[in-house]
Amino acid sequence: MHDLLIVGAGPAGLSASVYASRYGIKNLIIGEIPGGLTTETHEIGNWLGDIAISGAEFAHKAAEHAKSLGTEIKNIKVEDIVKDGDEFMVKTSGGDERARAIIVATGTKHRHLDIPGEKEFLGKGVSFCATCDGFFYRGKTVAVVGGNNSAAAAAVHLGNIAEKVYIIYRRENVRAEKYWLDLIEKNPKIEIINNTNVLEIKGDMKLEHLLLDNEYQGGNELKVDGLFVEIGLDPRTEIVKNLGVKLDERGYIDVGPSGRTSVEGVWAAGDVTNGSNNFAQIITAASEGSIAAEDISTYL
Amino acid sequence: MHDLLIVGAGPAGLSASVYASRYGIKNLIIGEIPGGLTTETHEIGNWLGDIAISGAEFAHKAAEHAKSLGTEIKNIKVEDIVKDGDEFMVKTSGGDERARAIIVATGTKHRHLDIPGEKEFLGKGVSFCATCDGFFYRGKTVAVVGGNNSAAAAAVHLGNIAEKVYIIYRRENVRAEKYWLDLIEKNPKIEIINNTNVLEIKGDMKLEHLLLDNEYQGGNELKVDGLFVEIGLDPRTEIVKNLGVKLDERGYIDVGPSGRTSVEGVWAAGDVTNGSNNFAQIITAASEGSIAAEDISTYL
Repeated sequence: MHDLLIVGAGPAGLSASVYASRYGIKNLIIGEIPGGLTTETHEIGNWLGDIAISGAEFAHKAAEHAKSLGTEIKNIKVEDIVKDGDEFMVKTSGGDERARAIIVATGTKHRHLDIPGEKEFLGKGVSFCATCDGFFYRGKTVAVVGGNNSAAAAAVHLGNIAEKVYIIYRRENVRAEKYWLDLIEKNPKIEIINNTNVLEIKGDMKLEHLLLDNEYQGGNELKVDGLFVEIGLDPRTEIVKNLGVKLDERGYIDVGPSGRTSVEGVWAAGDVTNGSNNFAQIITAASEGSIAAEDISTYL
Repeated sequence: MHDLLIVGAGPAGLSASVYASRYGIKNLIIGEIPGGLTTETHEIGNWLGDIAISGAEFAHKAAEHAKSLGTEIKNIKVEDIVKDGDEFMVKTSGGDERARAIIVATGTKHRHLDIPGEKEFLGKGVSFCATCDGFFYRGKTVAVVGGNNSAAAAAVHLGNIAEKVYIIYRRENVRAEKYWLDLIEKNPKIEIINNTNVLEIKGDMKLEHLLLDNEYQGGNELKVDGLFVEIGLDPRTEIVKNLGVKLDERGYIDVGPSGRTSVEGVWAAGDVTNGSNNFAQIITAASEGSIAAEDISTYL
């Protein structure tokens, strides 16, 4: 029996664990990737005190921090959480665990285009992580689909590796921090194709070209070696479905200022929630984790 | 004219500046101490990714981060902020500044005992910062007044320097993280005197003894060389008084999820607010700063 079981090993879960351990709350983290989505970030520039730190290094340091205080991070999958009186029974791929309180810090997952060829060419030209897979496209031509901050950052990162980078965006103007927009403008290898959608991903054994819904240089086909999908993120709320935790209208877990959810004994923190004014950042996730842990210390 | 003027150079103000700069928002920080109260922390153990970092080092790194993105930190004093149409006129000890948006990140100040001798012996035995002044009490006897996390941390820090450390607390049980309570228990030099108040601070040229409201070892006088006051913090809201920014019943600036205050164009972040479920931490302050900056990027 654990005092606290934290589902998710990203910044929210790890920060919650650091605070909980210092309060003397025995806690276990269940999470597939220590550091969560930060591991996919090439360079973090807005974590206060670090002018530039790689996502991999940050993730490592954060996980080591939690572990240094005695917490174990189990790389297993949570299948279901069932309330059992004042306790919770957590069914996992590695057996059952019991806990008095739960923090859901499962974060978000990449949104898919849901177009023909996307599944077929995953790992054969289609990627959801420029940091992880950009390396394979040295001297090649790639496209990024999307127009948010993540898409802009991916294009900048790929601009240092590939020969040519297209940003394909369905709207008029890419909306990202000026920091990224300036870097895009300065790199002649990066070209923005706006008001355009990708309809299909085509190839033989691997991705060869994209079918666009608008003409580009006299045709609807764009020859690329790689396609990076950066069209947003969706909250990972599957495991709380049976618990009946209230979601907001966008599908994020609805939390109050303390991180409490609609189910007593269940807190949520980080990108999976509608906390922090819906601003999903490493710093806001870590903060939400600390707030939940503090509130749990008064609850237990 | 600045896009954004940030009052306060602690974690909230610095993080706000980092985010604002990356959004391309021209900002100026006015603050007396880069790093704010973190500079008074001997060792920070709950900043995710750093198992142990000194307050001084953290403060330095955080200030350098903000400056690396082009922001200046002016060590002057804000005297008043006046709304002037859609702009603000900020009167400072170094002349007037104008800005379109303001973030108040002035933090908190140490609460005083308000007992005879406290002012008289300040710097002559009375201190509000164990990290700053503990060094002077090597091999001596000191007391910490208070029973919260800061008091416990101060006692632990002083326990490594002084010969004897008393914690004088008006209630029964010191309420601090188990991390600190364990360290106190392990150190035979630290002794807790509970259910006791300090009534007066006495001495000749410097502090010599404390007058207690309860008997301790047969008398009401406790001989000490130093007294560290750690009885809590109060929000620094003087500079927003004339602006009419709404405070909560405890005197903290009332903010919504975005950090907006009751006055349009004025945001607040960090320990001076009632945000983050009233949990005043470096991580929550930095998070609130980032959220305010993001919201301002949509406002400007």
